[in-house]
Amino acid sequence: MFQTYDVITNPSLALPRLNALRALMAKRKLDAYLVPRADEHQGEYVPACAERLKWLTGFSGSAGLAIVAARRAVVFIDGRYTVQARAELDPALFETARIPVARPEDWLAEALPHGAIIGFDPWLMTLRGFEQLSAALGAHGLKLKPVAGNLVDRAWDGDRPPAPMAPVVPHPLACSGETAEAKLARIQDILKRDDQDAVVLTLPDSICWLLNIRGGDIPHTPVALAFAIVPRRGKVEVFIDRDKLGKAVRDHLKPVARLHPPLAFADRLAELRAEGRTVRVDPATAAYAITRTLGGARGIARGADPVIALKAVKNTTEIAGTRAAHLRDGAAVANFLCWLDREAPTGHLTEIAAARRLEAVRAATGALKEISFDTIAGSGPNGAIVHYRVNEQTDRSIEPGELFLIDSGAQYEDGTTDITRTVAIGKPTPDMVRAFTLVLKGHIAIATARFPKGTRGVDLDSFARRALWQAGLDYDHGTGHGVGSYLSVHEGPASISKAGMVPLEAGMILSNEPGYYREGAFGIRIENLVLVTEPAVPEGGERAMLGFETLTLCPIDRRLIEADMLTSSERAWLDAYHARVLRALQPLLEAPTRAWLEDACAGL
Amino acid sequence: MFQTYDVITNPSLALPRLNALRALMAKRKLDAYLVPRADEHQGEYVPACAERLKWLTGFSGSAGLAIVAARRAVVFIDGRYTVQARAELDPALFETARIPVARPEDWLAEALPHGAIIGFDPWLMTLRGFEQLSAALGAHGLKLKPVAGNLVDRAWDGDRPPAPMAPVVPHPLACSGETAEAKLARIQDILKRDDQDAVVLTLPDSICWLLNIRGGDIPHTPVALAFAIVPRRGKVEVFIDRDKLGKAVRDHLKPVARLHPPLAFADRLAELRAEGRTVRVDPATAAYAITRTLGGARGIARGADPVIALKAVKNTTEIAGTRAAHLRDGAAVANFLCWLDREAPTGHLTEIAAARRLEAVRAATGALKEISFDTIAGSGPNGAIVHYRVNEQTDRSIEPGELFLIDSGAQYEDGTTDITRTVAIGKPTPDMVRAFTLVLKGHIAIATARFPKGTRGVDLDSFARRALWQAGLDYDHGTGHGVGSYLSVHEGPASISKAGMVPLEAGMILSNEPGYYREGAFGIRIENLVLVTEPAVPEGGERAMLGFETLTLCPIDRRLIEADMLTSSERAWLDAYHARVLRALQPLLEAPTRAWLEDACAGL
Repeated sequence: MFQTYDVITNPSLALPRLNALRALMAKRKLDAYLVPRADEHQGEYVPACAERLKWLTGFSGSAGLAIVAARRAVVFIDGRYTVQARAELDPALFETARIPVARPEDWLAEALPHGAIIGFDPWLMTLRGFEQLSAALGAHGLKLKPVAGNLVDRAWDGDRPPAPMAPVVPHPLACSGETAEAKLARIQDILKRDDQDAVVLTLPDSICWLLNIRGGDIPHTPVALAFAIVPRRGKVEVFIDRDKLGKAVRDHLKPVARLHPPLAFADRLAELRAEGRTVRVDPATAAYAITRTLGGARGIARGADPVIALKAVKNTTEIAGTRAAHLRDGAAVANFLCWLDREAPTGHLTEIAAARRLEAVRAATGALKEISFDTIAGSGPNGAIVHYRVNEQTDRSIEPGELFLIDSGAQYEDGTTDITRTVAIGKPTPDMVRAFTLVLKGHIAIATARFPKGTRGVDLDSFARRALWQAGLDYDHGTGHGVGSYLSVHEGPASISKAGMVPLEAGMILSNEPGYYREGAFGIRIENLVLVTEPAVPEGGERAMLGFETLTLCPIDRRLIEADMLTSSERAWLDAYHARVLRALQPLLEAPTRAWLEDACAGL
Repeated sequence: MFQTYDVITNPSLALPRLNALRALMAKRKLDAYLVPRADEHQGEYVPACAERLKWLTGFSGSAGLAIVAARRAVVFIDGRYTVQARAELDPALFETARIPVARPEDWLAEALPHGAIIGFDPWLMTLRGFEQLSAALGAHGLKLKPVAGNLVDRAWDGDRPPAPMAPVVPHPLACSGETAEAKLARIQDILKRDDQDAVVLTLPDSICWLLNIRGGDIPHTPVALAFAIVPRRGKVEVFIDRDKLGKAVRDHLKPVARLHPPLAFADRLAELRAEGRTVRVDPATAAYAITRTLGGARGIARGADPVIALKAVKNTTEIAGTRAAHLRDGAAVANFLCWLDREAPTGHLTEIAAARRLEAVRAATGALKEISFDTIAGSGPNGAIVHYRVNEQTDRSIEPGELFLIDSGAQYEDGTTDITRTVAIGKPTPDMVRAFTLVLKGHIAIATARFPKGTRGVDLDSFARRALWQAGLDYDHGTGHGVGSYLSVHEGPASISKAGMVPLEAGMILSNEPGYYREGAFGIRIENLVLVTEPAVPEGGERAMLGFETLTLCPIDRRLIEADMLTSSERAWLDAYHARVLRALQPLLEAPTRAWLEDACAGL
């Protein structure tokens, strides 16, 4: 099983931990200390040994920042985690503040006197994060100070998990579609073009993509934790624990990489500095500690991690792989939904039972490597918690008359999936049907959009919201994120969101997941993955447009759709989608599920 | 007459002027010199004496930058001016480059050797412009050097027009709705909040808004050229030529302002520096020369001109005024369109005749102070030139079977208008009708949008493009700009465009003007002004939404609409809009025009 349902936080543990941290701060004369939800690689998921924010505060969300001062402490969260933070944080110990309305610098300026010193671990903050916060604090007479050795780690006693040491495996060419040599040549072309001697790679998925390897150091994302330096010419220098590398992968890496122990990384950076090399560092993703070792902000060549843009555009092998993965995954989820329709109306199912069943049908494909994130299985009011993670304590039975929202994904060697379906258990209320249909209109608006080259996600995001806005409703998350190819289920640089400033390109895979959440009542989200394509120019058209092809193949609950609220072209899209789903999945299903699917995919 | 139709540029004049400038550059050892289309105030329109770009190159667009090197020269323009630049620039003398695809720094890096010096007039570039260009050039080993005394002015012989000296008048409280004292108190509250001693105001419309005055120094925008320093306490220091000020306006200004000659401005800045004052300067709008006089970038407090945000949100008096102005203007334009429908099909009208007639019907209201910009009157292929300015040479007859695009506006004391109508002359082709209907769908999508507080123009812009995009079409300009209250017809900070990052607020006035342009054939634009409002939350809605109320009152050509392409709600919007136009304008029109209007406003 890839998911556990243990209660992972216990607010009563926070006080002694907070006290221990405050004692260490006092010793170092720090007025405050920052505890971000980050590791040295700045990925979205972190290994258990880097779950410092959760250990200290109890908050288990995938993004957040605690600031601890002598008498006050606060946890900054975003809109996805409002409800969860309320459940996990002890309000006697932690204030809660919501970005971007609230800002850490304002809290610090209010909480601390002029001249106060705020400590932080330079391995857990990027250069950009440091510069922005530093400038904002400077305006208030506050000083940000890098502190060697993480203070939370010192407070964290014997039960801190060890660093992960999962074996690394080669990612076959049949799945990657491009050799590591060819990828390396593309990166080195960029270095030549930009006249740089080397680039530091710190993101595990960048390194794994480049070298065509996969690992298991982090839950749900098949990456190996490592650092790398790509020189303008010659092999990549990879800093990774040798215990993770068997003979097969060492042979696989030999033509493109030289291997070093992780401890050699800082020395090698210092060497590059001493040699006067022009080293490219990504200010948005590389730890500030790296920039410091290279001589500070003036000592580096600022530039995006060049892998990010290349990795986002999938090649034909990866696209074929993702289609196969979605076919397999769609059949598994259809099996699950058929079972849910049969079992749930009796009221004996719980959220955990559903999540377990879904993992089991995926495992039954024989191809499941991991789930791509902890399944979000929310019945009734739990569906309104955007990033709900069910545990033994919160587990709720799935009751007739409620909505059940299930957001899940799989890691297959040929592709990563991510799908949300919202299902009516028994008879839905007219209110639920109306809200679901509004969300569906937004989903279809994205699925059918055409847009010129150069269009960014921010230019499309509102298409998904228009129908909700007209009704006085909205949702507090982006509409879509990039998705990797047997890599991270959340991948940059593009997104369909208010912050999506990167142009979409043919070959990118993104999610399309508008939603609607009524706190205390129900949640709705409809999520398919889409591939950016270059459809033919329509009759009379003048400009080459991009569009989306929906990859996810699974029925959308017709019992929740008010057909009269759809335009004829929206109805046509849904009927065509369901016809396609039926055609694709039917051959993969057994008779009873096939009958269920026929029903679920009938025309509106 | 507020508009002339003279041929304003003559490419043959450019060579001697360019040679004169190059001689001055050589004397100062400059490898290149920048000639932006800007004056010391960085407004959109500049007085004749500051039309340096036009004088030097012949290019008369409202935005652009010439870079002159010893052997090469280039004019950077934006997408609106592609066609116009081709007509006005001598390709033997000037290359043309289109931003943002082409960038000045890249051209300079390519054209000049390492170590080259690029001169510029520090009064004609903002601090932000300087910093960005300087950083970009630094990366190529090029240096930007402020040069005292504008070199174009030195080359410009005796025929350079004198500085404008139009009389300044008080803007009555019945139109402004807020006294200058109250406005000053709001600005000073901001200075207190931000702990600053003073703010420098350089934008003429900011100064005129604050002091409730209007002037006539610049074509089409009723502002007086001046600089001002607003101290934290006490009166505004205004630097303005006394010859512009009669007794009435001096009395009007007395309670809020102390008057100084323009020449005293630099001395006063130097004094503030010597006194160690914290002076707020807007890096995006204030000339770099001001920052230099205050001691450089570290010597100022960076902050937006505080008037910009306040001025954009109109008060109830201004809103009532703009409604009255739009009623008056709508009737005038209806008179014009009725005349056009009667006269144009015979084929004897020209673009200039139409523009003259339109100005005449506006003047006949007895309330016209100015037109708000040179009327864009484009028949047939001229309609495809987005910012076409007709002159005696380009004047074209308006022919049956063509489209005629007319974009114009008026300055009335109670409000500024801006309206575009595209009219079928005789029978339009199905192609024209289809394109017009697609543009109309975009226009309606904006007019009917609801959106939550915090929504920016960038989040709405694509609504206007969706129907065109689906057909493989698009337009290369923003969808809407802010509009002043008897001030500039293009006003910040908000816009409905890909660059519109400022949240819309109730009380803002913006244009809604999607278009479509087929080069060499026809142009289509449908423009109304809209007011941001706070409509009631709809039944079942949860969040307060903003919306638009259309201010412009004038029929949209029904002969160009394919009703079958509209949804039922789009049809309902158009019919309701026309019913409202009919009700509003009917009482203001004489019998024959009234009959025409009834026809023009009939249901689809």
